[in-house]
Amino acid sequence: MAFTMILAESSLELIPEELASEKGIISYCRRVGRPISGCLLDRSYHHQAMSKLPQSYKRGRPDIAYHVILDTVYSPLFMDGLMNFYIHTFQDKVIEFGPGVRPPREYSRYEGLMVDLFRKGSIIEDGKMLLSIRNCGMKGLLNKIKPALVIGLSILGEPSSVENVARICAATDSAAIVIGGFPHGHFSQGLQEMLDRTFSIASKGLDASLVSARVIYEVERSLGVT
Amino acid sequence: MAFTMILAESSLELIPEELASEKGIISYCRRVGRPISGCLLDRSYHHQAMSKLPQSYKRGRPDIAYHVILDTVYSPLFMDGLMNFYIHTFQDKVIEFGPGVRPPREYSRYEGLMVDLFRKGSIIEDGKMLLSIRNCGMKGLLNKIKPALVIGLSILGEPSSVENVARICAATDSAAIVIGGFPHGHFSQGLQEMLDRTFSIASKGLDASLVSARVIYEVERSLGVT
Repeated sequence: MAFTMILAESSLELIPEELASEKGIISYCRRVGRPISGCLLDRSYHHQAMSKLPQSYKRGRPDIAYHVILDTVYSPLFMDGLMNFYIHTFQDKVIEFGPGVRPPREYSRYEGLMVDLFRKGSIIEDGKMLLSIRNCGMKGLLNKIKPALVIGLSILGEPSSVENVARICAATDSAAIVIGGFPHGHFSQGLQEMLDRTFSIASKGLDASLVSARVIYEVERSLGVT
Repeated sequence: MAFTMILAESSLELIPEELASEKGIISYCRRVGRPISGCLLDRSYHHQAMSKLPQSYKRGRPDIAYHVILDTVYSPLFMDGLMNFYIHTFQDKVIEFGPGVRPPREYSRYEGLMVDLFRKGSIIEDGKMLLSIRNCGMKGLLNKIKPALVIGLSILGEPSSVENVARICAATDSAAIVIGGFPHGHFSQGLQEMLDRTFSIASKGLDASLVSARVIYEVERSLGVT
């Protein structure tokens, strides 16, 4: 089975241009000594300015992707080349993680790497593509990888154990699991329509990093990875 | 069953006094505008100065505890009051997590909280103890909680699935699982002697956050928590 995990509509973006004249943003950029195109949008620092953004409740949480990236990229499943991993962002961009990628574990270095990626479009080392970002959207990504089954995980889905979800994945040629990468709310209507099935794996909402860690672990178990 | 998880010999400490005169430390503290007693030791910034510290390879990685804390404290097992969680540090201090604790998910706020804890000894909110730190050592902690079985997880242990480890825990009145909270090396000899059994749950070393997430998930499964 080809297994793909997608962190979808993730709260990961540079500070948008429309906030450039906000007082709080100007003083933040001065304090950290970087232009706004060199900073990730982060609710911890930009809360007040963010109230002007549409769907601001879904944005400005780069720590969510950070946790999921580390728990995914350093898992045996990814390290052994048995899964593909993508981050789809709130702005419908798609980040691809190359097989040899080993992102920094320290938060400020992760932030620097993501800023670099958004600005340059790719991170290449020794001729190998480690990270790339494209404007293809979730639709373009699914058209490219063509999974036989696309499963969304959401508190609104049909109750199921993670083990059962992994078993359903293992029974198909190619499955993609889609996890929400935002702090509040649900998948957008447009994204929901791209899912073949939606399951809920817990009776209360779980952090995305817990969801991804549990899914990867159960897929490893179903494939006999040790 | 009473279940306890301990992140042991964790790379979590304030910058030690013995580095106060190091050039790199002085310039770092000036740059962030805090005294050395207000900063966590972090290899990302203090690498050169750290070479003077004993066992420096096991120190200066506060991000390890950060990941484990978030993946633990926001798990259903902890949120439902079905586990106790402690962080034991390289300096043999013990941090206890109160049942209502909800630490910040953003890294710099986590750092601020830990600095506060090291300086004040406890974090109390509305009369409730959220976090406390004591100099009781691992020995004092085990004397206090008196687990019937203490299991260490280490690449040097007897190979076992996580499921099996959780099953062994569930079969005792009170079990404690001990996970290494350091980037390299193994449990110290002294700590190793406090373990009743040691298991290895993967063929290669796993990040502590992956280990804790997998253990908690399997303990939840063995207890039927959903």
